[in-house]
Amino acid sequence: MLAEIITIGDEILIGQIVDTNSAWMAAELNKIGVKVKQITSISDEAQHIVKALEEAQNRADIILITGGLGPTKDDITKLTLAKYFNMPLRLDEETLAHVKEFFDKLNRPMIEVNIKQAEVPDGCTVIKNKNGTAPCMWFEHHGKIIVSMPGVPFEMKYLMEDEIIPRIKERFEMPFIFHQNILTAGLGESFLAEQIADIENALPAYIKLAYLPKLGQVRLRLSASGTNEAQILTDVAYYTKQIVERVEKYVVLTEDLPFEKAVLNLMDKYQLTLSLAESCTGGYVSHLFTQHPGSSSVFQGGAVTYSNDLKQLVLGVSETTLAAYGAVSEQTATEMAQGAVKNFRTDYAVAITGIAGPDGGTPEKPVGMVWIAVASKTEVKAKMFKFASQRFQNIERSAMAALMMLFLQLKQDLNVKH
Amino acid sequence: MLAEIITIGDEILIGQIVDTNSAWMAAELNKIGVKVKQITSISDEAQHIVKALEEAQNRADIILITGGLGPTKDDITKLTLAKYFNMPLRLDEETLAHVKEFFDKLNRPMIEVNIKQAEVPDGCTVIKNKNGTAPCMWFEHHGKIIVSMPGVPFEMKYLMEDEIIPRIKERFEMPFIFHQNILTAGLGESFLAEQIADIENALPAYIKLAYLPKLGQVRLRLSASGTNEAQILTDVAYYTKQIVERVEKYVVLTEDLPFEKAVLNLMDKYQLTLSLAESCTGGYVSHLFTQHPGSSSVFQGGAVTYSNDLKQLVLGVSETTLAAYGAVSEQTATEMAQGAVKNFRTDYAVAITGIAGPDGGTPEKPVGMVWIAVASKTEVKAKMFKFASQRFQNIERSAMAALMMLFLQLKQDLNVKH
Repeated sequence: MLAEIITIGDEILIGQIVDTNSAWMAAELNKIGVKVKQITSISDEAQHIVKALEEAQNRADIILITGGLGPTKDDITKLTLAKYFNMPLRLDEETLAHVKEFFDKLNRPMIEVNIKQAEVPDGCTVIKNKNGTAPCMWFEHHGKIIVSMPGVPFEMKYLMEDEIIPRIKERFEMPFIFHQNILTAGLGESFLAEQIADIENALPAYIKLAYLPKLGQVRLRLSASGTNEAQILTDVAYYTKQIVERVEKYVVLTEDLPFEKAVLNLMDKYQLTLSLAESCTGGYVSHLFTQHPGSSSVFQGGAVTYSNDLKQLVLGVSETTLAAYGAVSEQTATEMAQGAVKNFRTDYAVAITGIAGPDGGTPEKPVGMVWIAVASKTEVKAKMFKFASQRFQNIERSAMAALMMLFLQLKQDLNVKH
Repeated sequence: MLAEIITIGDEILIGQIVDTNSAWMAAELNKIGVKVKQITSISDEAQHIVKALEEAQNRADIILITGGLGPTKDDITKLTLAKYFNMPLRLDEETLAHVKEFFDKLNRPMIEVNIKQAEVPDGCTVIKNKNGTAPCMWFEHHGKIIVSMPGVPFEMKYLMEDEIIPRIKERFEMPFIFHQNILTAGLGESFLAEQIADIENALPAYIKLAYLPKLGQVRLRLSASGTNEAQILTDVAYYTKQIVERVEKYVVLTEDLPFEKAVLNLMDKYQLTLSLAESCTGGYVSHLFTQHPGSSSVFQGGAVTYSNDLKQLVLGVSETTLAAYGAVSEQTATEMAQGAVKNFRTDYAVAITGIAGPDGGTPEKPVGMVWIAVASKTEVKAKMFKFASQRFQNIERSAMAALMMLFLQLKQDLNVKH
């Protein structure tokens, strides 16, 4: 079963927003066995919308359209679809009642354009959007499904989860799709490929291996689809085992989880607490942890000590250390991590101090130089990294390196394997 | 001048990564007057690549392709392009020397697949990729430009900035493009549209107005393109002034800056320092500030006090307050902000404490309830917000609300307008 995603609106095409919707939708579709063939972003132009829709129908069975449903003049998707499907607009009473209720709750008067939001092409199935005023519209056309929904992420996500995905599952018979991830660190993409070349060559045609390199890690992904679920699971497990055994010392994780979530899960299992002392990562690692519901059982908090003053005040780094070795040093990183364990009363702490750039580098301490320390109540280890010149990349790579150091330390202390 | 962007690779189509490249590229192209007509994401399939390339050439003059150039088996872009343009592969000696140098630096041996990276279609212009091993390839075909580059963001970005954009500017005569942003808060999209309907209707045809709603704010964008630069600037300034005067009390910013960067700039101008006390936002606001180079002149750091213990230990929130009113309360938010100003020795501090969800809500304090306080050395104000049920949305909206409270307070204290 193939699907395509079409996003409508200038925001993406002029680079004002990043299209996070499509990746999320693709992941949800994949889970139920629908493969996304193409994702297309186009602007609010009737002719282009029609062309994209026609091309998508040549390739796929399900076309999901997001965006272009706002109340303002530049949003023309609904009108274009009505014309394309040759359906006159009609006022949908249920939608109108919902829009009215929506405005009543906000204690705001409805205006002309809001009433227009309750108009729908006569012939589509109207799906109520409980998180917004623009209704979702489901069309069936020459055996293809075309769905138009708002581009606002939390409206779209709710509609996908509660309405679209269940309806697709009801409407079509799906193959079974299975992805197995193997997260590795410490070996480049081509070296990994060389080490497992014979395993890769022996894979049955219906299992695909992809290399997804990111921030010093390579995620291997085995993907299989078919009807024989048991066979697929057995085969994928067999080849996963082969790969893991071959490159064992580089394997970090075989669960399909963000790295920081795997760290949280491991610490939660052993009832360990964590705090952070972030300098150059400036809150990014804290944010990685706290984006996950339930992180508070492990993550107690921490300090973003951007200035030297705060390193002393909050973490108790000594003035002598800062004066003698500087903020980016083994000694400062070590004292930051130890200070966090002590002041924040946690089992473990990670400290990160470095020069994210683009400015602030010196010949001895260039941009991209980062010291990371991991402390427990009894031990502390620090390590230096040399990343590159791009600020955000340095922040991201520092975060990944910090997670890796913590994870390896935990696995060693707890005596667990991946 | 029209361009299209084609991204190749399964990662986006299965939802494993979000396509951040395309938005960045689109923004860069827009700056030099190139409009992006379509962004297309497809998988590593030769036939689909060729089809997408052909369709893109029907619509645009410049086709930028990212991804599919890795050394492993699943990357087939280069071979496909060589066949499509009917150019045999040749070993490019300069690229080979660069790849060799790259591996020497990493102190790693080259293997067969790495040598293959130095092969290029005979007839394209090879552009050196100093940040990676896959070269960038520039094709000219029936008057169209087709460029293939790696999908790794920091390789692609460097190539775009240093090589592709300058070459495009040299090759084509560009119209002048101008975007003017007006960031508003406090009034919904449709109400804004109603208030400025007559101004919008009076806009000359070559000026387009877009409404970009996000997180309780609406960004209005006037876009104009043409050859008469002076006329465009005069006209856009005229209509911008009209809109700003009409909805003055909702206008936050007319510069094209991320909100937090505007806050940093204002505080930097007046040599004011800032710290944060984050609970439910968990480091996200700190990360927003610290992603900007030079933020350290204003932002000193702060605390992520996820647990009640840390609220007491690091910020000095009193046990009595926490016991009597709870962590999510006006009193706690106030003491957090005051504690940050005092303990972190800054001119201003913002505190955020709330229930991000999905768990942890009660009838009195439901998920989405957030208290935000802004303190200076002499004053503190707190305000309650009720957001929704989605965790990340609550984190983002809390961050935006916190920035807004701080910005309004600063503007009032400093007596400045937008």
